[in-house]
Amino acid sequence: MQKKISEKVINRLTLYHCILTDYIAKNIEYISSKQLATLLKVDDSQVRKDISVLNNSGKSNVGYIVKELKVSIEKTLGFAKNKKAFIIGAGNLGSALAKYDNFQDYGLNILALFDNDKSKIGGMVNSKPILDIKKLENLARKSNVDIAILTVPRVYAQSTADYLVKSDIKYIWNFTPAVLDVPSDVQVWNENIMGNFLQFTYNI
Amino acid sequence: MQKKISEKVINRLTLYHCILTDYIAKNIEYISSKQLATLLKVDDSQVRKDISVLNNSGKSNVGYIVKELKVSIEKTLGFAKNKKAFIIGAGNLGSALAKYDNFQDYGLNILALFDNDKSKIGGMVNSKPILDIKKLENLARKSNVDIAILTVPRVYAQSTADYLVKSDIKYIWNFTPAVLDVPSDVQVWNENIMGNFLQFTYNI
Repeated sequence: MQKKISEKVINRLTLYHCILTDYIAKNIEYISSKQLATLLKVDDSQVRKDISVLNNSGKSNVGYIVKELKVSIEKTLGFAKNKKAFIIGAGNLGSALAKYDNFQDYGLNILALFDNDKSKIGGMVNSKPILDIKKLENLARKSNVDIAILTVPRVYAQSTADYLVKSDIKYIWNFTPAVLDVPSDVQVWNENIMGNFLQFTYNI
Repeated sequence: MQKKISEKVINRLTLYHCILTDYIAKNIEYISSKQLATLLKVDDSQVRKDISVLNNSGKSNVGYIVKELKVSIEKTLGFAKNKKAFIIGAGNLGSALAKYDNFQDYGLNILALFDNDKSKIGGMVNSKPILDIKKLENLARKSNVDIAILTVPRVYAQSTADYLVKSDIKYIWNFTPAVLDVPSDVQVWNENIMGNFLQFTYNI
């Protein structure tokens, strides 16, 4: 059975993964828990504990084998399970997310963006089409997409969420500052940017 | 002395704040812990416990007084302490953040964006000027800005961070997928978008 991994550990593992990706680009073969700890300003023992949740065998006297550790993280966090998603709203934020090339590396496949602005519909962002929001319901069912990344203006957030629910979307990754009211079988993940900022600055 | 509030509580308090803002816009005067709990799909008792960390007196038989609860959250989380920041990178993500009107409500004052792209320099986003990145060092000192919101492409993340450190920036809110290597007196807050997504989708 799969061990339950806490949110904080998942978060740190993805940061280790970023560092490992950089090391591979620089052709560095080994990395120590101390190097990872220094970059993330966490404790050495914390890094070793996090890595112990992986089935990682790539350990040598000079540290972890970068390539093997990267693969271990990918396997454990399920990067291989490809997930399809739509971006709702082709404004600055939606476009920024569509351009975020890392998504693909992590198994997140953005199929299209949706908007109601006629001047945007028919365009492309990072080779992904911008489609008329009215087509979403049909396309979600046909392409079996149940994840929507919501980036519309706050005032349209709830009405758009209602439409997504009607279209059988089951997971909404909410980048708007609105708190959405959805049925219990729909999960909302709030990307609470201001909440994060306030955590960050609480003590400064 | 101020009680230490955990990150999770801070995060939920900002979500309550979003809901209260909506209620005020709809002229609703009272809200119960049950209503807040239902919207956020958390436990009723959790909401009451969170609110107990505030010095909130606005409680009646029909629930919390929306306006007073909002002010209590703002006081506790220090929205009133105005913080000045620069956005580094005037691409889609930097522009989206510059347009995020909520920042101002939460005491975050974005003074300007910086870029090295001559076609962008001199422009405006949401009434904020886009300036030449070379001017940052001087302006940061003159305007006493020590927070930078980093939205440059991944390949420029470390070199830009080095320049920010040299310019006496002490807090970097890092929206790039790079892990930054900075001196110990500089704090980096990683807005780890992929980490958040993986937490969200870990069990689906």
